[in-house]
Amino acid sequence: MAVAAPDRQRYEALRAIEEVARQLVAQIARGEGPYLEVPVRTLANIIWDPQSKLLKLGPRKLRRDFLDAGEARKFMQTVLMMSLLARAIREGDYPTIRDLYYAGKHTIEYTDEYGRARKEETWDVQKESDSVIQDIEVLTGFLREQMGILHDTKGKIVGRLTIRSGADVIDCSRMGDGAYSIPPNPDALEVLEVDAEYVLVIEKDAIFNRLNKERFWEKHRCLIVTGKGQPDRSTRRMVRRLWEELGLPVYVLTDADPYGFYIYSVYRSGSITLGYESERLATTGARFLGLTITDIYDYKIPRNFIIKAKDRDLKRAKELLNYPWFRSSKEWVKQLQLFLEKQEKVEIEALSGYGFKFLTERYIPEKLSTGAWIE
Amino acid sequence: MAVAAPDRQRYEALRAIEEVARQLVAQIARGEGPYLEVPVRTLANIIWDPQSKLLKLGPRKLRRDFLDAGEARKFMQTVLMMSLLARAIREGDYPTIRDLYYAGKHTIEYTDEYGRARKEETWDVQKESDSVIQDIEVLTGFLREQMGILHDTKGKIVGRLTIRSGADVIDCSRMGDGAYSIPPNPDALEVLEVDAEYVLVIEKDAIFNRLNKERFWEKHRCLIVTGKGQPDRSTRRMVRRLWEELGLPVYVLTDADPYGFYIYSVYRSGSITLGYESERLATTGARFLGLTITDIYDYKIPRNFIIKAKDRDLKRAKELLNYPWFRSSKEWVKQLQLFLEKQEKVEIEALSGYGFKFLTERYIPEKLSTGAWIE
Repeated sequence: MAVAAPDRQRYEALRAIEEVARQLVAQIARGEGPYLEVPVRTLANIIWDPQSKLLKLGPRKLRRDFLDAGEARKFMQTVLMMSLLARAIREGDYPTIRDLYYAGKHTIEYTDEYGRARKEETWDVQKESDSVIQDIEVLTGFLREQMGILHDTKGKIVGRLTIRSGADVIDCSRMGDGAYSIPPNPDALEVLEVDAEYVLVIEKDAIFNRLNKERFWEKHRCLIVTGKGQPDRSTRRMVRRLWEELGLPVYVLTDADPYGFYIYSVYRSGSITLGYESERLATTGARFLGLTITDIYDYKIPRNFIIKAKDRDLKRAKELLNYPWFRSSKEWVKQLQLFLEKQEKVEIEALSGYGFKFLTERYIPEKLSTGAWIE
Repeated sequence: MAVAAPDRQRYEALRAIEEVARQLVAQIARGEGPYLEVPVRTLANIIWDPQSKLLKLGPRKLRRDFLDAGEARKFMQTVLMMSLLARAIREGDYPTIRDLYYAGKHTIEYTDEYGRARKEETWDVQKESDSVIQDIEVLTGFLREQMGILHDTKGKIVGRLTIRSGADVIDCSRMGDGAYSIPPNPDALEVLEVDAEYVLVIEKDAIFNRLNKERFWEKHRCLIVTGKGQPDRSTRRMVRRLWEELGLPVYVLTDADPYGFYIYSVYRSGSITLGYESERLATTGARFLGLTITDIYDYKIPRNFIIKAKDRDLKRAKELLNYPWFRSSKEWVKQLQLFLEKQEKVEIEALSGYGFKFLTERYIPEKLSTGAWIE
């Protein structure tokens, strides 16, 4: 794995922002109305690429003209955010997306064409400022994490992995009963050493804590990761790097329900609404270890442990059947159709009915040794 | 700080469970119907002790008779859970509360007094098994964490603090841009070294990440902690130990709204519904650093950064005014009444309107140096 240079990357992002700004200045200098060409982020321009198994941005771009009354506000917001980001990088600040919302929020007072005094907020809600941050991500080709924008992080990791973050060397096998909390920008981590055969991604934090307490990662020579339910971008980026750069197979362990399958799907292919992130965040080789719907019957889960599916579970399962990466997998189609037919789901803790060690001493090793995962 | 002996504590809990069981056996041997005397956990038996500033369990106990038809089910559940816990401790398992729910869930088939075949579930929902775990906590005087029961953990810590967890020595000042994820049972941690003048507890994870990235804890010689909103029990226990055993003052930083004040209240005095935990989890000396309602006006937060209070904010503020630890503080009464009058709240990120460094270079140092916190 190449040496990561966090600050270098941040300054490259700054240069990319400055380049966009330079083009605007050049347009003005030529006497043209300034405009930005922003790749379209909506569903209509998100394309499933079966080759790379990735959701990608298509070729469509949107022209955001300053002199177009319908685009002027969004143009102003984009340039305002670019200036906030450039200043933060230059001054060594690491704002959160909410900090940026407040830092840029102010009232513009102006006189309209009829001579009336008018007021306009730069943005009214954080959704607006977040949206232009996304535009700047696709404009410059840098993730906001790479620009040093901070956010909530949920991910934890443990195992024989030694990394460098800033001046610190962190041995993720020496965390006791705790764990290493994955930093906001995993791209800034340098991997110094790894001794693991695979990565096990665990949906539930409490199950992660249990496997850590049992030192599963030591006995089975793996890294264990949790994103606590729906993973954040940092956890997804971390898993992607472990898979892509270290060549470690990635297995995902969730409840047997469409919500768990969707979590797997987010690790593997990203969310459709934020398709443009997938190129950097998705682990397209991620394998689903379980629990599957067929596990409910193969492992003879007692009837009173089985939970009746709710309407929203059925709805979600139908949505999943429409996602290309599920639709193109015979095994996934089988699982989802079986779920829709039986309308039953089960939690991973249900395996504890066979003893607390059943999950770690039988279920996971059996699935791995027989190759009984789904792709 | 005394050397923590995690396993010793777990075995003490086991002995306490065994002692309760021995009494049941003795009752049966004497020909009596077996019964348990469980301290009442409901609001009626939670007492505010102004001396210790703690919510405590009162003296009321409930007699749970096996031969009382109305109590038999709960009696069975309590004894079942005791046996699950004893087995887990003896066999070195670390189940989650949900694992325990499934491990104990089964159908009891029996014939009733009219000769009819009947079936009963040991418990139907996890609420029932969780409730008997709480009963066993108050019966034995051991927290479930001390018994080695696992759960979701949210807390993170960074700063000049060196701890031992199991065989590992963890230096919380060498976590790079990440953090040490607080383990489920902080009682099992042994503090080896600390070099800090106070603990800063931060409501928001993203703000914690920012202060960590700025190395605030290094510049200001403190430890920083986040519980990501409403803190879990492990984070509360960790903060309590830092305050009680290391004598570090604890300051809490939240948004200026009743939700933030309530988070402070949970660190300081616990939740009313789980009052019995407070004796071990509450940091009764915790100070509220900000943001206060008066800060909105003292720091001249721009009008367009101020958020109108919602009905649930007003409701929560009125509830807080009823809590003894708020009601007995003149300054808190003033803040809450001002809030109810103005009906305005503000987020901590609003300070970024004055520049991204305003929070760390001006607001926090100013509050600390002038002693402008609330108790």
